[in-house]
Formats: sequence, structure tokens, C-alpha cells
Amino acid sequence: MALLHEDRLFPADATTRSIARRIYAAIRSLPILSPHGHTSASWFAHNTPFPDPVKLFVQPDHYVFRMLYSHGISLEELEIANETISDPRKVWRIFARNYHLFRGTPSRLWLDYAFQETFGLTERLSEKTADLYYDTIEQRIAAPEFVPRKLYEDFGIEAISTTDSPLDTLQDHIEIRASGWKGRVLPTFRPDSVVDSASEGFLRNIAQLGAITGEDTHDWKGYLRALKNRRNFFKSLGATATDHGHLSARTANLSVQESERLFSKILSGNADLSEQELFRAQMLTEMARMSVEDGLVMQLHPGSFRNHNPDIFRRYGPNMGADIPSPTNYVEALHPLLSQFGNESAFTLILFTLDETAYSRELAPLAGHYPCLKLGPPWWFHDSPEGIQRFREMVTETAGFYNTAGFNDDTRAFLSIPARHDVSRRMDSAFLARLVAEHRLDEDEAIEVAHALTYDLVKKAYRL
Amino acid sequence: MALLHEDRLFPADATTRSIARRIYAAIRSLPILSPHGHTSASWFAHNTPFPDPVKLFVQPDHYVFRMLYSHGISLEELEIANETISDPRKVWRIFARNYHLFRGTPSRLWLDYAFQETFGLTERLSEKTADLYYDTIEQRIAAPEFVPRKLYEDFGIEAISTTDSPLDTLQDHIEIRASGWKGRVLPTFRPDSVVDSASEGFLRNIAQLGAITGEDTHDWKGYLRALKNRRNFFKSLGATATDHGHLSARTANLSVQESERLFSKILSGNADLSEQELFRAQMLTEMARMSVEDGLVMQLHPGSFRNHNPDIFRRYGPNMGADIPSPTNYVEALHPLLSQFGNESAFTLILFTLDETAYSRELAPLAGHYPCLKLGPPWWFHDSPEGIQRFREMVTETAGFYNTAGFNDDTRAFLSIPARHDVSRRMDSAFLARLVAEHRLDEDEAIEVAHALTYDLVKKAYRL
Amino acid sequence: MALLHEDRLFPADATTRSIARRIYAAIRSLPILSPHGHTSASWFAHNTPFPDPVKLFVQPDHYVFRMLYSHGISLEELEIANETISDPRKVWRIFARNYHLFRGTPSRLWLDYAFQETFGLTERLSEKTADLYYDTIEQRIAAPEFVPRKLYEDFGIEAISTTDSPLDTLQDHIEIRASGWKGRVLPTFRPDSVVDSASEGFLRNIAQLGAITGEDTHDWKGYLRALKNRRNFFKSLGATATDHGHLSARTANLSVQESERLFSKILSGNADLSEQELFRAQMLTEMARMSVEDGLVMQLHPGSFRNHNPDIFRRYGPNMGADIPSPTNYVEALHPLLSQFGNESAFTLILFTLDETAYSRELAPLAGHYPCLKLGPPWWFHDSPEGIQRFREMVTETAGFYNTAGFNDDTRAFLSIPARHDVSRRMDSAFLARLVAEHRLDEDEAIEVAHALTYDLVKKAYRL
Repeated sequence: MALLHEDRLFPADATTRSIARRIYAAIRSLPILSPHGHTSASWFAHNTPFPDPVKLFVQPDHYVFRMLYSHGISLEELEIANETISDPRKVWRIFARNYHLFRGTPSRLWLDYAFQETFGLTERLSEKTADLYYDTIEQRIAAPEFVPRKLYEDFGIEAISTTDSPLDTLQDHIEIRASGWKGRVLPTFRPDSVVDSASEGFLRNIAQLGAITGEDTHDWKGYLRALKNRRNFFKSLGATATDHGHLSARTANLSVQESERLFSKILSGNADLSEQELFRAQMLTEMARMSVEDGLVMQLHPGSFRNHNPDIFRRYGPNMGADIPSPTNYVEALHPLLSQFGNESAFTLILFTLDETAYSRELAPLAGHYPCLKLGPPWWFHDSPEGIQRFREMVTETAGFYNTAGFNDDTRAFLSIPARHDVSRRMDSAFLARLVAEHRLDEDEAIEVAHALTYDLVKKAYRL
Repeated sequence: MALLHEDRLFPADATTRSIARRIYAAIRSLPILSPHGHTSASWFAHNTPFPDPVKLFVQPDHYVFRMLYSHGISLEELEIANETISDPRKVWRIFARNYHLFRGTPSRLWLDYAFQETFGLTERLSEKTADLYYDTIEQRIAAPEFVPRKLYEDFGIEAISTTDSPLDTLQDHIEIRASGWKGRVLPTFRPDSVVDSASEGFLRNIAQLGAITGEDTHDWKGYLRALKNRRNFFKSLGATATDHGHLSARTANLSVQESERLFSKILSGNADLSEQELFRAQMLTEMARMSVEDGLVMQLHPGSFRNHNPDIFRRYGPNMGADIPSPTNYVEALHPLLSQFGNESAFTLILFTLDETAYSRELAPLAGHYPCLKLGPPWWFHDSPEGIQRFREMVTETAGFYNTAGFNDDTRAFLSIPARHDVSRRMDSAFLARLVAEHRLDEDEAIEVAHALTYDLVKKAYRL
Repeated sequence: MALLHEDRLFPADATTRSIARRIYAAIRSLPILSPHGHTSASWFAHNTPFPDPVKLFVQPDHYVFRMLYSHGISLEELEIANETISDPRKVWRIFARNYHLFRGTPSRLWLDYAFQETFGLTERLSEKTADLYYDTIEQRIAAPEFVPRKLYEDFGIEAISTTDSPLDTLQDHIEIRASGWKGRVLPTFRPDSVVDSASEGFLRNIAQLGAITGEDTHDWKGYLRALKNRRNFFKSLGATATDHGHLSARTANLSVQESERLFSKILSGNADLSEQELFRAQMLTEMARMSVEDGLVMQLHPGSFRNHNPDIFRRYGPNMGADIPSPTNYVEALHPLLSQFGNESAFTLILFTLDETAYSRELAPLAGHYPCLKLGPPWWFHDSPEGIQRFREMVTETAGFYNTAGFNDDTRAFLSIPARHDVSRRMDSAFLARLVAEHRLDEDEAIEVAHALTYDLVKKAYRL
């Protein structure tokens, strides 16, 4: 008995499946490149064990607790906000009893992978097996080798990026580098807190940015210098990329004078919503300009209506499973930025979307023309078997494979990383196998493409 | 020879097909729950036979006559508006001669099902077999047992809901209950005519609502009391749900004072389009508030641009196949209502869409978070094999199966009901079989899920 | 060894594939009807040979050079703007070296088809085979029979339409007709340059239209007469259709007085963007009115944001692979035109889209109701295996097969024409084979439908 079948996610047709198996065999053991995600550098800096199964599987995984919440299980019962879980076994049993809710979801695939591959469990999680699971996991995570650095190595990770505020001292990253450990944990420059005036504590953040850099961040030019300064600091600790999570993909291309005036208005605290949007738009273009100069790859993750549920936000804060995608336009929104920097071959801008309608309509045509553009993998809700398949089906014919940037796991659930990369590799193998079976591609080419999608294109796009 | 193949709609791959067969075998004979539709309570109250084949298959089915109309066949030729069909055989021959137009459409599947299962016909409908069909159907519907109550029983219906105006006396429902007949025919509270000020005769309807309930419906509070009163009347006759068919999904959350002012403006007849939209928006939130109190499940069917063809509307009125879907936003539109009632576990709001782009982008993420939300099945143009498949593919990975509400036939074509449920059961079996064949779900789980989708989830979501 | 497999594009499942083969066998050799495209009438008028492989495969094909450009290869290197290619072998080698970029794209299928079927090449194009290809193609195109008229015949073309300005003298079309050659090359009336006031040289064009027709084109009525006059001229040379390429699908239905006033404003050069949009909208309705009268079929190709890359546009002009689709609404936009002419059976309006979300949401419901509407095939970025499959899957269930208008190749790459029609025939066979394998259609019906999609519906929709 096993939770995982060797042929999972491969098409049922026997011919296609055997092709998929061969393609997958060529890539399954390649190292993991994880160039975008939300693991914590402190894990690798301090290398301390995980406290209990709930801290490992439930609390850090909004995919898991939002599904339970959607069925009327309160976040209190799940002890979501608790620093220390008072009754982890009780929470675990709730999770186990409701495991059927995850049928047909990628969470199920990721969880089963970790249960079997990391913990040796082979019987399905349910009310009946809840305690068996709890005891097995509890025992295993108490073992001395069950620590972040060892898991990094066991998982075959070659490099992993975190996501960090410009105000972060990156102390953990400094310690990792100083420790002599061979793992590559890279910071990513995510400046939302100092370029999006709607973010909490924005004015305080601007002041702090000034204090850290010794620049006058209340002056437009000083503010830009301060940002450059921090980008360089990130680069010095291995960063190769920036990341931007605005609600829309809107960019602007204002003159210096207009930018100065807008910045003053923003700092005055009297900017209206459209001025705040314009400022975010202009700052994307400024970030692109800096990327052209300093070579940091730029990532854009737009389209999430954050904290849609005000009651949950008030009680629990952000990232509680209540971020909902919204329609996102790219063709108009990116026009100002692309008009300025779109033809720069030295510049790389990786685009993501939560709006799948943009794949074939906007993103593939844009990436199939502009030298600077690459398409990031299916993101968040779409990082799933069907989501990956739709991405390849809707993007490939116009953008080709080589305008995409391989896979991102984008997770804070550390144990799910190998599982997520495995799903991606399997789905790419399945897609390529179909092309081969339908004589749209030869098998030797498919294997080359699979290798590129898994490794080469990630390395190149992220300059790892 | 047969119109229907035992394996229809199952994937061609032999392994997957045999799994689909086994799943389907476990659910094919389950009772039909039809919690949303447009059959007429008077059929069951009076139990009178159907007059002729055209009245049975052409006149009540806008899927059928709009397709004929799109090929230049006039509604006059089809006698669409005639109380009595003057030459039903002639109309039937037109239909038969054009039956090839329905190739590849769900109508073809539904019609063939009724032709074979209800009338024993096995040769394809065409110009050549037109009269054979006409004679066979005519003879059969003249038989004493071919009456609505008997068909209800033969079809294996356990409960069926109609859709009714708050101004309706529900006399037919009263008579059904008084008759001693065991069939469950339930009214549904659909208040569009008294909450949407753009509906025909709105001010007259408000006055009539006052007359029926003895409330002063020109006063905001009296108006709300009158609505509650009618909801309770519907409940007393078995209603478990309300239904709302606005053009957009917009909701609002005004104060009592603002609502009062807006209502006065609406009653004055001077409200502009945006005030009318705001009033509809506020009334959705009011209906939600009442649902929280009285337990009626709320259904929202937005996004239809009704009566797009003004000439047809002028000559034939509504529901003539000229209602066209339009883009529908949910994430912004529902925010006011969900901010107020989204976390109420006792409240159920079932969402439908004619805009499939909302499935993976908005609806699944919303339903995968808010406890009150469930997703209704693919609706209208999307109640079809490909439509059902897209729904499951785009919704399941984020919302899971258990945040959906099973199937609705939503029809006024009574004979199509078993056919529609059969298509749905087959397509769900096919989807689940693929998950099993690809080792994403075990077969015992798939059978459990199929049962839930066919029966348990409908019963639970609609509180039947 | 071969570039093309006999079963390419057919589903891998053995049962389905064998059905697909039988359907395809029934249609593969039908004549090619090419009712919309961008070949040059001068080719057929002058019948001169093609100069070199680059002029044949790279320069006229924006699918090809935009992909190379997206990977940082400059348009200078590709000699895109050069009248005479200075070093065609060098350009060819660049193309060959980067041929892997086209993996998974339709260009790869079209190119391989031409390489094998027209040039007898059987080894894959690559850096290694670049010169073999170059030499083979160079030699073959120097042969006396490698001329446009002979290729037209070899390709099995029965009729081909060009796309022409109302200001064109159609001299090439006149010469073709005078030559006694049997080929049917038909002009198409594409009036964008004289109805879209945003087009370059608009006012000059209006004056020229007056000069050609002897009408006062600065008077609304004279302007309309001039357009009618040119339409009749096009008809006299075999035109059966018009074509319209506006950014949006918006139509209007102004009174004569309003139209006159708007036209004056447009001619004054002072119209703002919304007045220019309104004028385009009104002109679509005027074109429809003329079509009702003169019987020319109307085609609408909306939704392309032209020349998105200003630097490329400035240096190279239009059609450089930098046209990006944008979201397109039909249901509101077409309402004015359809309210006026939607029920005219004698009028045919063929709709295209670059926004696939409109297929099931708007286009299929519109075409499934209005007698005047037919749906054109998947266009441009969506003229591809996956694009064709999505089109059939999203359109057929609501509009049926018979509200579609068969295939268009829409190309300026002459050699790709048989390849494109072959892909379309194969994908339609594959789609129909699935319906047969799933018992949704009988095989005899599928073959009839395939014939209709390939030939009959094109002939009928375009009145060829």
C-alpha cells in the first residue's frame, strides 16, 4: 500500500504514459532551484528543529487552514495565531477528520508526498489514522537530523530564495554565509513596504529607510539613492532578483519633475487613491530602471485583492487565506514601462498572473515579442496539475517554451517544496509526452525541453 | 440500433472508461433532487396531459427554438407565441429537418435521451423520420399514464423546486399539498419583481406587495417587513431557498438612513441608473440579512444581459433565447455583503455564473475561504459536457468538491430533467475517473465524492 | 526519416485516432477556400519567382521574426526592412540555429510542412542542417515552375481573397482577370484607412476617395456614396466581402443629423478620442447597412492593440510582431448594430476575436441567436492546435457547428497556406473523433460535419 503511485499525474493513455515516464526519468533527480518563495532564512541560520506536526503542516499553510475555515471550522479551534500550540494533537485530529475536503486539490498531492517520502506513512490520513500520523511525525521531527539544513540537502536543493523587506538587516543571511554551510539561501528585494503608500506604516518605513542608508528619503533623489543602496546591499548578500506585489500591473513613465511632485504629495499623506496608484505605477518603472543598471531580475506578482475578509484581517492580520484574485490587465498597464525598457536585452522582467485569461490573450503575445520579458510559472491558486496544464496549453503556442522561466514553489511550507517541484516536473513531462504522442515534437527534443524547464531556464532567468 | 450508447460521455481511454463505468454504476439510480428550475407547479396541481409534441419539445425549450431562429427560421413559422399550435406536425417537420443543427450541442443529448427513454424511439430524428416521431410521441402522450405526477415518479424525482414571484398566491403549491400526493414540489422565493426597480410594473408590484401583506410598503421598514412576511409564507409551503437574477453581482452595505433615502428616491420614479443599481445591490444584502435570520438558502444568478434583441422582445416578450451573458465581477461586487455576513456558518449563499473566467479566478478562491459560500453547478449555456468538465477542472483544485452544491437542471423542459441529471452524473464520473486513472484520487474516494455530488451535497446545500 | 508523421495532431488514444484518420481521409484532399488573408495580388498578376529563402520564410512571417526578436536577436541582424537581403545565408543560419525556439508552436508545424511537402526536406532544421536547407530551397525556388500561379494550382486552391484599401486601383486584380488564368483571386474591401480617423493620413485619404469617385467626400452623404461606389467597384472584380479591423467592437446607431455633425467634427481634425471611437462605431453600422443592400459579407476583426512597441514602430512601421490582443467586449458593443440589422437573414456578419474568453460567454450565445451572425475561425495567436481545440470546445455546445464559417488562413506567408489548412482539418477531425468516441455523435454525421467545416460552410458564409 502506498499514498503515491509511480505514474501519478501521467495521462492514462498507455502510449503517452510511457513517453511521459521516459521524459520524467530524465529530470526527476535534477537539483531543485527555488528562486522565489517565502521560507524563513532564520530556519537555516539557526537550524533548530520543528516543534510539532501542527507547526509543520497546518499553521504555515494557508491552503490547508483556509479550506478547513471554508467549512466552518474556526481559526481559534485551529490555534492559527498561537505562538505555541496548546493542544496540537487536538488540532491535528480536526485536520485528519476533514482530510476528505482536500480531495482533488494540489494540497492533497503535496501533503501525501511529504507524509510518504519524509515520514514513511503509507495509509491514507483520516480520523482513524490521525494518531498514527501524529505519533509518527512527532517522533521523526524529534530526531537530530530533522533540521532545516539537513532537509535542504536531503531535498536536493541547489539554491533557495527568500523574500525580504528593504528594511530587513538580513542578519540571518549574513549568519548563514558566515557559518561555512554550503547551502545557498539568497535574499530577494521586495520593496512594497517602501514604494506602496497604502502599506501599513509607510511613512515610518520611509523614515527608517533614510536612517538605514543615511539618505534624505524625503527628497525624491535621496529616496531613489536609498533604494539603490539597499538593492546593492541585497546584491552583496547574493540577491539576484527583486519582487513586486501590487494590486494592479499598472506602470507609469512620469518626468522627474512630475515624479518629484507626486512623491511630495505622497509624503504629505494627502494623496488620493488614484495618486497612490500612480505612485506605485511610477515606482515599478523606477525599479525597472534600477534593474537595467544593477542587473537584478525584476518579478511582478499582481492581481491579488489582499485581506478580502475584514473580520479575519482585524483579528488575525494578513496571509490568512482571504486574498482573492481579481481581473488583471497587462497590455495597457505595462505599456509605459515596456515603452521605456522593453527592448533592453540586459533587463529581465518576469511576469506572473492570478488571472488565467491573460495567458493566451496578453502574456504570451507580450513575452513572444519583448526581449526583456519572461513568463513566470502558474502562481498560487494555479500552481496545481490543471493549472500547470492550462498554462502550458495557453502559453506555449505563442511564447514557446523558451520565454518561460521554469518553476517556482513560492511557499512558506518547507516540507512541500520537493512535492511541488515533483508535481511540476510530472505535469511538464505529461504535457510534453502529449506533444510527442501527437507527433508535434520529437522525443529527444521533449527531453531537452524538460531539462530546460526544470533547470536551465530557471538558472538563466534568475541569473543563479 | 439505439440513439444512446451505454458508454456515452465517458473518456475513450479503456482504463479510464472502465473506472468511469464503475463510478457511474454507483450513482446512476440515485433519486433526482432538482432544487432549482422553472417547471410549473400547475402541472403537478392539475396533472393534465400534454397536448402535442411541439408543446412538449419545441415551445418550452429556448435552446431549441433559438438555434432554429439563428438559421433564419422565423418564430412565426415555429408558432412560438401560439396558445394552441395550429399545425403542430408542420412545426415538427421543420424541427426534424434541421435536427443536424444540434450536432455537438447538449440539446441533442437531452432530446435523444427523451426520445429513446421516454418514447422508445431508436432511429435518429431527421426529415425522413419526422412523421414516425410525431406519431409515436402523439400516441404516447395521449396515454392516461403520461401525466406530470406519473412522470415525476417515473423519473425518480425526490424533490423539485419551482421559481416564484413574492406576489404569487402559490395556489398550485397549496393544492398539491392538499391533494395527498406524495411528490415534493417546493416554491422558491424570487423577488426580482419587487426589489429590482427596472422590472416591469415595479411600482404596481410594490403596491400589490403591500396589499397582500397588510404592510405599508412605501415605508422602508414596512417594505422589509412585507418581504419577510412573504418569505415566511413561502417557507410555510416548503420553500428552502430564495433566488436572485440581477445583471451584476453587485452588493452594497448602506446604513438604515441611506437605505431609507434611496428607497424614497426609487419610489419617486426619479432614480437614475446608478441609483437603481445601488438599490438592487442593497437589496441583495437585505436578502442575505433575512436569510441569516430565517434560514432560507440564497441563490445568486447574475450576468445575463436580458432581451438583447429588441425586436424579438417587442414582439414576443422575454425568455426568447436572446439573453446573452456578459462579463461578471464577483470579488469587488460581493465584498460589501461578504464583509457583513461572509463568516456566518448558518448562512448559505450559492453562487452561479455565466462568465466562466470567474471560476478559477474569483469563485473558487471565494468559496475556498468564506464559510457561507457554495458554488452552484455550471449554468445555462455551460450546463453541457464541456461546460461541466471546465467547471470541475477550474474549480476543484481551489474549492475542492465539498464547496460545490451538486447539480441543478434549471429547466422548463420537463422531459429533459432525467437526461440532464444523467449527463451531469456521467460527466462527474468521467472527471473522477480521470483523477483515479492519474492516481490523484483512489477509486473508493471517487465513488464517495460522486455520491456526494449527486445527492448529499444538494440535500445539504439546499436544506432539503 | 520524416519531419511529418501521418498521424500528427490526432489524439493518442488508439480508438479515437482511428476515427480521426477516417474523418480526415474524407476531407484531406478537398480544395482550399481561402476567403480571408494577406497574400499579394501582384504575385499572381506578375507570376515572378521568389528571390531567396529568407524572403520566402523569414521576412514575410511576423510569427517567425517576433520569436527571434523576443530572444534578443535584432531586426537589423534579420535584415527585416531590407528590400534586398544582403546576406541571406547569414540570416538563414541565425534562423536555423534558433529553430528550437519554435518547439510547441504552430509555426514549427507550418514550417516543417512546407520544408517537407514543398522542398522534400526530411531532416530537422538546425545549425547543422542550415546550409543543406538553404541550398535545397535556393535551388528549388529557381526552378521555372516555382511561381505563384503554379503553386496556387499545386496547393489545390479554389479561391483566395486578398485584403485591399478602398483607395487601391485593384490593377493587379484587373490584370489577373484579363490574363485568362483560371485562378480565382478576389479583392476584399477593407476601409479602415477611410473610416478610422486615427489611421495615418486619414484626411488625405478622404480627399483621395473623393477624387477617385467624383463624390464630395466632405459631405456626409457624398462620403457614403463614395464608399458605396468603391464597394461596387470591388464587387465588379469579384469581391464578396468587406473586413474591419477596429481596436474595439463598438458600434453605434446615430441619427443622420448626429452622424453629419460627428463627421464634420472628424473632418475638422478636432475630434477627441471618444468622438473618434464613436465615429468608428457609427461607420461599422453604416457598413452593415450597405452590406444589407449590396450583399457583401461583413467581417469584424477587433481587439488588437497595434504597434505596442513604440521604438519598433518608429524604426520599422506596422506589422512587426508587436500587436498585442486586449480584452474585447461584444455583447454591449454590438448591441446598436444588431438592434438595427441583427434579424436580417440576407445579411452576414462574421465575428472574430483575440479574446478567447468571449467564445463561450458572448460569441457563441450571440451566434446561436442572431440570424445574421456567424463565427469566424480562431484568429492569429489562436490559429494553432490548442487554439482550434479550445474554439471548438467553447463554441460548439452553444452555437453548434453550423453557425461557424470554416477556416481562414489569414496569412501573408504564401507557402504556409496548405500547412495551415491541413492543421485545421486535422484538428477538426480530432475534435469530431472525440465526439464519436464518446458517443456524442455518429461517425457518418461527423464526416458530414467535417466536410461542412472544410468546404460547404466557407462557401456559403463567404458567398463564394
